[in-house]
Amino acid sequence: MERRRHVGAGRRPAFDFDDVVYGIHAIDEALAAGERLRGIHVADDRKKDGVLRELLARAKERDVPVRFEGRPFFASLPFKAHQGVVAIAPPFAYATLPEVLPGRGLGKHRLFVVLDHLTDPHNVGAIVRTAECAGADAAVLPDRRSAGVNATVRKAAAGAAAYLPIARVANVSEAVRALKKSGVWVAGADAGPGAVEMEAADFDRDLALVIGAEGAGLSQLVKRECDYLVRAPMLGSVASLNASVAAAVLLYEALRQRRCP
Amino acid sequence: MERRRHVGAGRRPAFDFDDVVYGIHAIDEALAAGERLRGIHVADDRKKDGVLRELLARAKERDVPVRFEGRPFFASLPFKAHQGVVAIAPPFAYATLPEVLPGRGLGKHRLFVVLDHLTDPHNVGAIVRTAECAGADAAVLPDRRSAGVNATVRKAAAGAAAYLPIARVANVSEAVRALKKSGVWVAGADAGPGAVEMEAADFDRDLALVIGAEGAGLSQLVKRECDYLVRAPMLGSVASLNASVAAAVLLYEALRQRRCP
Repeated sequence: MERRRHVGAGRRPAFDFDDVVYGIHAIDEALAAGERLRGIHVADDRKKDGVLRELLARAKERDVPVRFEGRPFFASLPFKAHQGVVAIAPPFAYATLPEVLPGRGLGKHRLFVVLDHLTDPHNVGAIVRTAECAGADAAVLPDRRSAGVNATVRKAAAGAAAYLPIARVANVSEAVRALKKSGVWVAGADAGPGAVEMEAADFDRDLALVIGAEGAGLSQLVKRECDYLVRAPMLGSVASLNASVAAAVLLYEALRQRRCP
Repeated sequence: MERRRHVGAGRRPAFDFDDVVYGIHAIDEALAAGERLRGIHVADDRKKDGVLRELLARAKERDVPVRFEGRPFFASLPFKAHQGVVAIAPPFAYATLPEVLPGRGLGKHRLFVVLDHLTDPHNVGAIVRTAECAGADAAVLPDRRSAGVNATVRKAAAGAAAYLPIARVANVSEAVRALKKSGVWVAGADAGPGAVEMEAADFDRDLALVIGAEGAGLSQLVKRECDYLVRAPMLGSVASLNASVAAAVLLYEALRQRRCP
């Protein structure tokens, strides 16, 4: 169980750091996505900033309460790149696997990305962002030993967490079995010699790409459940790509094969 | 052997934090790449760790001096993910643009990635890693208002900084002009409507991909120097990809076009 950290338990309304959207761009994306922000906290010394004022005008249009804060408020936050403005979002609304299985009807085939216990929120956020850009139907991630959709993920996702359905599951292997049962081919990303190079793989059908954890890669149990393993071509002297980069290269290969079969 | 002063004694360490390689995997990659490490500092309480002992055995084979340190040494470092071991590398040896222009002769055409003032070292490191994996000839980055090759970049590059030549230039626009003069086509990554979708672009020739800064994108000056602008297809509700993801998708599209023209 994740520990929930709160701030402002005194005279300020308490909120969970996981539910904070920080930085002008991320808040702007959240507003554009129609997220029902509970409030925006702005640094007193940023009152005159033009870009921020435009943001606050858009927040006002959507009846989001704005509150000005002194330095101690911002000093108490566990993130630095807030640019003097944070918004409080409702707790992230995860989907369930059965909800996302039918897909969103965006492309000619379904496309999922399954995260096998990734712990770096920057990677999780970057993958959510890329999956949304590449027209994926949903991301799937486990509820334990994995980064959940917290403030850092939302920030790295640049607003995509408000669009891409994200299903939280108890068990990744079981999720893979459920995907296969629903007719989805499951390809595990693996840099090892047992993997097929992506251009030789058929991604032009219902597909789930499973991305392994940073360092450890796919767990053995999940690997065994995959229909096959797939990798990007590796020409250099380094053995593997960063997890979010591998996900991006594979997601875009899937998109390419569907557009130019 | 020269005795090293260390921070435990209340003095500045006799090395630059930029030249630190930290974490077992990164140090292992540096050793494998033949980097002439000046020394390895290991936490006293990690002495019995099996994985670490293997690393130290490999260091010994290469005559890298090892020194055990108490908690104050590690507490003084500006990075947390060191796993109780840091290595001191020689200052990073940048190449010059004329040195990298002829390429490494790896592929049928030259491939460069130019970083237009990226400031996030994780992005720079991830791009260096991806460029090496995709068989690029070199990365080019400016010497000011840009992340240089520091400890965080080396860590994110997972050893690739020891293989991929990285040229540091005074001016990105001038570097782009020099690339064009040497017969390289220069494509700027841009998510805007003036950009060609990458599959419609001809990457099967000498090519430099220019990646813009996080948030700001390509500078106007650099954009004007590019032969054309290019982007990954964007299907979702988010306007752009993360800089290191955009670089990866474009680099792998270049690799694909060269392999399957």
